[in-house]
Amino acid sequence: MKALLLIAHGSHRKQSNEEVVMLAERLRHSCSEQYSIIHAGFLEFAEPLIPDGIKKCIDEGASSIIVLPYFLNSGHHVIEDIPNIVNNTKTHYPDLEIKIATHLGASPLMVDLLITAANATK
Amino acid sequence: MKALLLIAHGSHRKQSNEEVVMLAERLRHSCSEQYSIIHAGFLEFAEPLIPDGIKKCIDEGASSIIVLPYFLNSGHHVIEDIPNIVNNTKTHYPDLEIKIATHLGASPLMVDLLITAANATK
Repeated sequence: MKALLLIAHGSHRKQSNEEVVMLAERLRHSCSEQYSIIHAGFLEFAEPLIPDGIKKCIDEGASSIIVLPYFLNSGHHVIEDIPNIVNNTKTHYPDLEIKIATHLGASPLMVDLLITAANATK
Repeated sequence: MKALLLIAHGSHRKQSNEEVVMLAERLRHSCSEQYSIIHAGFLEFAEPLIPDGIKKCIDEGASSIIVLPYFLNSGHHVIEDIPNIVNNTKTHYPDLEIKIATHLGASPLMVDLLITAANATK
């Protein structure tokens, strides 16, 4: 089974974390045919942390996981921290296929999203 | 003339700031018919800061500006810092129409962007 793990930074502000969990919920409604298991996870400040998020996916039957960094820029978190944590966690699950998607700012759809957000401003 | 001012947090890491400037460049290619003036600006750590970005747009002839926060969550920066800076700057330009777009996580296109990023992962 394929899983999608949306990873945000995590915030001391509860509402920011809840927005991420709600976004994972929206993803669940939109792409449950492609990804049977969809969860949110956090780099820090909120639960589940990345290793626990990966474990959660595996416990629910995931054999492959796409880790999707909910980050706009290719900063240290995206370039180093998330890959390091994912690679360390993977050593516990040798049969698991796990890949990390590019950060969102690199998406060709970002320009469309920005223009739509600008044009919707009242 | 309408202007679009893309506001990112700004980073000590030069490449992150350059990504934002390049994104503004991509926007310029995509929607120059709707927005004659498009610039990037930063909340901190990089130039131009928000007041200077607004001044730049006005100096180039902008009579209305959409400030587009390049932020995923509705944290303090989006809810308080950016509106406060924009409102303070606006007092210097009484004839300027200036509005702030919603943060990107609120966009209905975000789910599509996430799914596209996940599916593109190799």
